[in-house]
Amino acid sequence: MLLDQQYLFAPGPTPVPDRVKHAMNQPMIAHRSPEFPKLLEEVSTRLMPVFGSQHPVTILASSGTSALEAAAANVIEENDHVVVIIAGAFGDRFASICETLGAHVHRLNVEWGKACTPEQLEDFLRSNPKNLKAVFATYCETSTGVVNPIRELGHVTKRLTDALFIVDGVSCIGAVPVDMKEWKIDILVSGSQKALMLPPGLAFVAVNDTAKEVIRNCKAKRFYLDLNHYLSSYENDKSTPFTPAVSLIYGAQEVCNMFEEEGFENVINRHQVLKTMVREGLKAIEVPLLTSDEDASPTVTAVRTIDEPSKQIKKLLKDKFAITLGGGQKKLKGEIFRIGHMGYCTPFDVLKVLASIEMTIKILEGKNVMGIALKRAEEVWMENV
Amino acid sequence: MLLDQQYLFAPGPTPVPDRVKHAMNQPMIAHRSPEFPKLLEEVSTRLMPVFGSQHPVTILASSGTSALEAAAANVIEENDHVVVIIAGAFGDRFASICETLGAHVHRLNVEWGKACTPEQLEDFLRSNPKNLKAVFATYCETSTGVVNPIRELGHVTKRLTDALFIVDGVSCIGAVPVDMKEWKIDILVSGSQKALMLPPGLAFVAVNDTAKEVIRNCKAKRFYLDLNHYLSSYENDKSTPFTPAVSLIYGAQEVCNMFEEEGFENVINRHQVLKTMVREGLKAIEVPLLTSDEDASPTVTAVRTIDEPSKQIKKLLKDKFAITLGGGQKKLKGEIFRIGHMGYCTPFDVLKVLASIEMTIKILEGKNVMGIALKRAEEVWMENV
Repeated sequence: MLLDQQYLFAPGPTPVPDRVKHAMNQPMIAHRSPEFPKLLEEVSTRLMPVFGSQHPVTILASSGTSALEAAAANVIEENDHVVVIIAGAFGDRFASICETLGAHVHRLNVEWGKACTPEQLEDFLRSNPKNLKAVFATYCETSTGVVNPIRELGHVTKRLTDALFIVDGVSCIGAVPVDMKEWKIDILVSGSQKALMLPPGLAFVAVNDTAKEVIRNCKAKRFYLDLNHYLSSYENDKSTPFTPAVSLIYGAQEVCNMFEEEGFENVINRHQVLKTMVREGLKAIEVPLLTSDEDASPTVTAVRTIDEPSKQIKKLLKDKFAITLGGGQKKLKGEIFRIGHMGYCTPFDVLKVLASIEMTIKILEGKNVMGIALKRAEEVWMENV
Repeated sequence: MLLDQQYLFAPGPTPVPDRVKHAMNQPMIAHRSPEFPKLLEEVSTRLMPVFGSQHPVTILASSGTSALEAAAANVIEENDHVVVIIAGAFGDRFASICETLGAHVHRLNVEWGKACTPEQLEDFLRSNPKNLKAVFATYCETSTGVVNPIRELGHVTKRLTDALFIVDGVSCIGAVPVDMKEWKIDILVSGSQKALMLPPGLAFVAVNDTAKEVIRNCKAKRFYLDLNHYLSSYENDKSTPFTPAVSLIYGAQEVCNMFEEEGFENVINRHQVLKTMVREGLKAIEVPLLTSDEDASPTVTAVRTIDEPSKQIKKLLKDKFAITLGGGQKKLKGEIFRIGHMGYCTPFDVLKVLASIEMTIKILEGKNVMGIALKRAEEVWMENV
């Protein structure tokens, strides 16, 4: 009934717009030819407002986790003390990276499904060593669909410590507001395959002057992910130290066109509407959500499953409706599924996923809630047209 | 809110699947090289079940109207008598073509929005000259969303006359059953840009042995559309007399793959479900339809407009929801709009267009019918999963 169509609602990778695919199909250029520095400078600069950065954004040919590692590996030296806010699987990953690098990691564990409050961070910092190298936070915790109050956490960090404030923005940058200077973020990282509407394969690292200084003096050994190579290569000849993923950067150039045409304020607003449509629609049919409205991410929504294991629901949505969702990770495995609604996603896409959930409830439970989530979602859309 | 997305629900051209686009991007080949005859023979043969034809289907590099003209111009000589069943703009066009060719055209006018009954044709044939060269009928009258009962009309034609029975299948072949032999069709024509999921640019003419004989002996002058050239060129070396639209034929090859993968029975069934979803959904919110369920086409639905002129509704659907519909043509201009639901169209697409109509009613009339058409359409879908 659906031909070859497949609908990608994973919380990344996300659908790639046709015009981005076309842009990536431009003829290959040599990255040591004069064309490439022009392209890199343009894209690095046009991404500044998206990252709320005062400086061009560094682009690596690697995926999101490498950006997390680069952010940590370029500042942490053996036996450094760091705090990692852990409210889900990706906070946990940030901690593992820091541990691998030989740091003493102080884990601020937050209940999965909730955001870290500024008070929690303040209490934690007061009861832990003062000579911290860095505080690591996750903007959107993909595994739970929670956004942490980055601005407030940044202010607490700077008020109480001299630590760098390092933020994982992988599953939300491109869909949310951010201001590195005002929010006190020293390093902000992201990947290409989420709200930035690109295939996987690019990592982005935005660095402020304070962090640049720390990176310059950091004695830890690294090579491909040494940000000094990238920063000086960019400074000297607007290039990259190693072979860049040229096609993906052409794609990023087209994404910049799309952001600017829509207006980045409108991009952010669209994601708020998508989030509200999903949440209000699901509430209307009494599907329980993992997070509160306040803590909820505009890019991914975690749905609790009660009677049916999430694996069966996911399988049915895939088999009958060709819809790919995310499952639960680590301690939430089997207890939730996750709907990605970021990047190249419109209100029509939300209607699609809600209709499929309505019909899945009919198939699994025999309960007819068809049209109810859709009605509520349409109302939300209409309030925002 | 919808980024660059555009949703094409015109009754042709229709959306082209990605895999068809990819197929059309294959390297160009010379049509006098050995590769082309293989391609042409394969596609002409694989289209036989789609056209219900006993012979390979002739492929012209031109659009649908040329197929209508070819069907007429290759059999009609000056002063021939023909009957044309006219139940809408495309029946009317068939008559104009026949008149241009110098025929005496006997117009069987049927109320627009209704199908021609076998009894109507029988009465008409009994009261008109017996030495008819051809009876022309339209399978799906695109302008009204009506399907004529071709099988019954074919049988009446053959019972009462020696005329050829010539059928315009432009806006439905690829979505409906057809059997030229059993239904007594001598010539069946179609175009690429409707249910066949291709861009415009190909015309298809399926011809049986009786028609072939008439075409061979026809003395009317023609060149590009002379089917004798095509039939003999195919017979002699599986080629075309003039330059073929190679890329579109590669596309048609991929469409054959898609039809065979889905199963052509399932393709036909899918269109029935799409039709029923559209009609039942619109009825649930009291939007009046032009045609009865029995006469309605599985490929296009005509919707009456009451309070608002169709132009305003169409404009709103385009401006707010990026949805392109068809308007009314000729005497139905301003009184209807038309929803195409054929080819690369799924139940999710029907939900999209119904949601947009629900929201448009809210915007234009303030009436909240949101979710109601969708609920009914989902129910129809569920009955057919």
